[in-house]
Amino acid sequence: MMSQPAEDLRDQASRLSEDVTGPLPGSRKIYQTGSRPDLRVGMREVEQTASSTSFGSGLNPAIPIYDTSGPYADPDAVIDIQSGLPPMREAWIEERNDSEVLEAPTSEYGRERLSDPRLQEIRMTAVRPVRRACGGGTVTQMHYARAGIVTPEMEYIAIRENAGLEALREDPAFKELLKRHPGEPFGARLPETVTPEFVRREVAAGRAIIPANINHPELEPMIIGRNFRIKINANIGNSAVASSISEEVEKMAWAVRWGGDTVMDLSTGRDIHETREWIIRNSPVPIGTVPIYQALEKVNGRAEELTWEIYRDTLIEQAEQGVDYFTVHAGVRLPYIPLTADRVTGIVSRGGSILAKWCLAHHQENFLYTHFEEICEILKQYDVSFSLGDGLRPGSIADANDEAQFAELETLGELTKIAWNHDVQVMIEGPGHIPMQMIRENVEREVDVCDEAPFYTLGPLATDIAPGYDHLTSAIGAAMIGWFGTAMLCYVTPKEHLGLPDKQDVRDGIIAYKIAAHAADLARGHPGAQLRDNALSKARFEFRWRDQFNLSLDPQKAQELHDETLPKEAAKLAHFCSMCGPHFCSMKITQDVRDYARQHNLADLSTAMEQGMQEKAVEFREKGSEIYMPQ
Amino acid sequence: MMSQPAEDLRDQASRLSEDVTGPLPGSRKIYQTGSRPDLRVGMREVEQTASSTSFGSGLNPAIPIYDTSGPYADPDAVIDIQSGLPPMREAWIEERNDSEVLEAPTSEYGRERLSDPRLQEIRMTAVRPVRRACGGGTVTQMHYARAGIVTPEMEYIAIRENAGLEALREDPAFKELLKRHPGEPFGARLPETVTPEFVRREVAAGRAIIPANINHPELEPMIIGRNFRIKINANIGNSAVASSISEEVEKMAWAVRWGGDTVMDLSTGRDIHETREWIIRNSPVPIGTVPIYQALEKVNGRAEELTWEIYRDTLIEQAEQGVDYFTVHAGVRLPYIPLTADRVTGIVSRGGSILAKWCLAHHQENFLYTHFEEICEILKQYDVSFSLGDGLRPGSIADANDEAQFAELETLGELTKIAWNHDVQVMIEGPGHIPMQMIRENVEREVDVCDEAPFYTLGPLATDIAPGYDHLTSAIGAAMIGWFGTAMLCYVTPKEHLGLPDKQDVRDGIIAYKIAAHAADLARGHPGAQLRDNALSKARFEFRWRDQFNLSLDPQKAQELHDETLPKEAAKLAHFCSMCGPHFCSMKITQDVRDYARQHNLADLSTAMEQGMQEKAVEFREKGSEIYMPQ
Repeated sequence: MMSQPAEDLRDQASRLSEDVTGPLPGSRKIYQTGSRPDLRVGMREVEQTASSTSFGSGLNPAIPIYDTSGPYADPDAVIDIQSGLPPMREAWIEERNDSEVLEAPTSEYGRERLSDPRLQEIRMTAVRPVRRACGGGTVTQMHYARAGIVTPEMEYIAIRENAGLEALREDPAFKELLKRHPGEPFGARLPETVTPEFVRREVAAGRAIIPANINHPELEPMIIGRNFRIKINANIGNSAVASSISEEVEKMAWAVRWGGDTVMDLSTGRDIHETREWIIRNSPVPIGTVPIYQALEKVNGRAEELTWEIYRDTLIEQAEQGVDYFTVHAGVRLPYIPLTADRVTGIVSRGGSILAKWCLAHHQENFLYTHFEEICEILKQYDVSFSLGDGLRPGSIADANDEAQFAELETLGELTKIAWNHDVQVMIEGPGHIPMQMIRENVEREVDVCDEAPFYTLGPLATDIAPGYDHLTSAIGAAMIGWFGTAMLCYVTPKEHLGLPDKQDVRDGIIAYKIAAHAADLARGHPGAQLRDNALSKARFEFRWRDQFNLSLDPQKAQELHDETLPKEAAKLAHFCSMCGPHFCSMKITQDVRDYARQHNLADLSTAMEQGMQEKAVEFREKGSEIYMPQ
Repeated sequence: MMSQPAEDLRDQASRLSEDVTGPLPGSRKIYQTGSRPDLRVGMREVEQTASSTSFGSGLNPAIPIYDTSGPYADPDAVIDIQSGLPPMREAWIEERNDSEVLEAPTSEYGRERLSDPRLQEIRMTAVRPVRRACGGGTVTQMHYARAGIVTPEMEYIAIRENAGLEALREDPAFKELLKRHPGEPFGARLPETVTPEFVRREVAAGRAIIPANINHPELEPMIIGRNFRIKINANIGNSAVASSISEEVEKMAWAVRWGGDTVMDLSTGRDIHETREWIIRNSPVPIGTVPIYQALEKVNGRAEELTWEIYRDTLIEQAEQGVDYFTVHAGVRLPYIPLTADRVTGIVSRGGSILAKWCLAHHQENFLYTHFEEICEILKQYDVSFSLGDGLRPGSIADANDEAQFAELETLGELTKIAWNHDVQVMIEGPGHIPMQMIRENVEREVDVCDEAPFYTLGPLATDIAPGYDHLTSAIGAAMIGWFGTAMLCYVTPKEHLGLPDKQDVRDGIIAYKIAAHAADLARGHPGAQLRDNALSKARFEFRWRDQFNLSLDPQKAQELHDETLPKEAAKLAHFCSMCGPHFCSMKITQDVRDYARQHNLADLSTAMEQGMQEKAVEFREKGSEIYMPQ
């Protein structure tokens, strides 16, 4: 990637594409304030119109929706990507009085980049103080949780997770529906209301993590754990081949607009240090990275030249920028590497293959494994969470659930316990490509081996044969693995296996995964999940077209597709649609059924009809109901 | 819809869009001949290039694929939609000597349309003789099967279902893989090889159907049953609002090109009689309809004016045109209608709501139910199969698995037995909108209540909140319900709930459902399914880009997405891709792993490494592996 002149970037800053800011149609940003005035939880509220007279003229409540878009969707917010977002958590972090502002970054590389005059033009103008725990201490949310402290982050999360539940509790019809649709939670224990204390307990137990680096005060706290709403991650990042800084910042804002709960910056090109700074300063969601990618850049792509020292400096560099979680492939142990030799697709994880190459070149154990305690010592001083990478995940159906995959998982379980000894938060990465009948075993083993540490899976793809549609093949697996207990789903875009995702691919990938996560929340019986389905279906049934669009995951797309057949404004008010035409509408007819049922006494009707059935049944039996069924 | 001048249509006939004919990239049409020379089963064969030297230079076999595209993909076939496809089955039907050619259609409406001079310009020029069983007899495949007769249709199906299996049986590595990946068939009994006798037994037992009207000799026989490959249906059809005859014929050819196993013509506009003739004469796959739609047209959309006589004449009209299966909503019984009054979305099936309206208007039992035996008498004389409609299927998550839905299913079970008394083939339609945890119950009840008659489901959609993406929300449910035992999946396009599908929507819907069906075949352990995954994954791993595209469900889309980042021809031969760039490729590194494993003795290596692990484990234990885990 060529460095862009600063003027260009700054120009662009004031002109962030219109399609990434402002509210979604029919939505407004609302804030719910917690126990302190600076604890304001943003949500999205979808307004609804009243039912028409033929549907009883009732009012329909506004529906509050869990929202990841941060200030971008708020028309009152001033967005200036040169300055970054307001540091909401700054006071909370300062008040804890256990971290200090450093005079300069402590990583060698960080200092070098900062002092390089040639980089002036691509650096952000805003300078943010760098923090670290005082005296090598621990500033992790797990540390506080285990000490019995409920942090503002935990309270924020509790309010956020309850989005919409209050409205529900007042609705007796909803309670009735929930009784009819009991969830099957597969071991999850979803509380009716999430309390700050519940959040604390889950984090203390390691069953959930709050990725929230003290150097990312702009972040709106969120939680990853199977006793909460299922989350999704969107990957962005440039590579040597394509993409630029400004595109990546746009992609991040785009990703949170559509519902990305976290964003991983997987950049591998040049200037990734500066790209990352722009992304983090402007991100309301946790940012994850795979530090080995950048370490490899530093040795010009020669894996065998990687050293612990270079990697260590990279961890510090990124921790001081504010990365919230690191994928660390410490489970790719030397003894497991030969287990992949007979696979159809060998090692498909980039991180996994880099470390495999290093191990083989040196005939030594993976240095991430041997230095794991030292990594914990670094992470705990910034509250960077581990995402323990599955470097040996299967890259094809043929390699699913094999020895290499599960051997690595065992090691991840071992490392989880070590990280917890340091109060460092951990989630566990999972596959990959798995046929449906083998998905559940992945969750069961992970829960068992890693003591319920949150599972974070890529898909899995339920078949290999659809490149170009892998957001879909993987959404099948993702919905199922989410149902079985995965806490966060890493999205896959239509470009998977084929190229780098552009903006449209990011949107397609996120919507596919919002669908998977929501379907899984429904299946687990998440107390609030069905509210949105019910509201949208009622709007659909009552021909409130605009409400139907606005309540959907992608209101713009829904309206675009509707307009392809019936573009006129009047059609948004019509009591029919293009599928059946004006004279032939099943929903219209159902209305007649209701009217009929109301005119006649329903109970009388049922009795009368029941008698009718009996007569018919007798007749059928008299006609001879013997069935001829040869084999 | 306005009638089109004949010249236009005939012009268009010779210019059927280029994108619906000719082979897919890298594919050729092959034919496997059965026990008689006129029994030639078309398949698609995907050629592969050899592996490059870095991957051992081995040859890679051509992969035979089950193919639904009929003559359209064969460059040697002459396509002329005015004449229709060659009537392959004509001789087979004649030889059975149990049907006769009628002098004229026997339905009143059919005769009327034929003699209307104003319709001359939109009628096909080719005239096909109309057949019916001699003397009110039975000409169904079930009838023959129960009599112990193996028809050419059954033999054709056996060869077709085995596509690719021969290649597999010669590959010991494949057998090894299957052992590692046992399927979970949920009661399906998938034979290693399908024999004609197996087909016969399944049809005789009612566990599978062969939709094959004697008036649709152009059809390539196929089977629907849970002990065979899972099939998919694509809906097409104009409505009062949009679409034309020629568009519908194109959509049909388009649908079979991408893998539609059957096509339902759901037209509700004018000229549906003539549209249907064009579609059937040109369709190599079974055509299904919902005759009540046309009957309603005949009474100008006033459901209460429907009569048994009008409906009966419509059945005969369509049976004599060659429709292969009819959706009949005979289970929408009067007593069940009030059960829908409190639903969130009432009755969403068009057919269901028409009949509900009729029942209420007359306060009488559904005339399809009371005349069911007479319907059987008609269907058996042409071999039209029943698709017993689920007129009370749920239209939202809130209404899933409710009393109305399951009451109707009970009646469908009762009707199945009546149809079987007449040797009429039956499949059962299923929902709809169902959350994941409630899907399996649908299959289990259907199998139980309908004595294993094939299940044919629409989706189901796993959530209501994504209009514009319902091909995807429903592919999640479809993959799961297919795994649990559904025999055919009715596709849903992105336009569902919003508008009429255009060509792109049809393609998107079909690919989504091919993915779901294939994922389900993999999960059930279909003996041939994994062949294609393995071949594609091997091609991917070895950077045989063209082979990867060609083996995929949509080769054009795969290549288009690849070209967006790396458009140059050279990139199709490159040993890297745009995701990681040329210097940083996990698959390249895996090759090093293999080389390493080969250089060193693998067994020695493993032993040495195992010792290393032991040492490490001891060290870990010595350091103190106690874990601090408060709640």
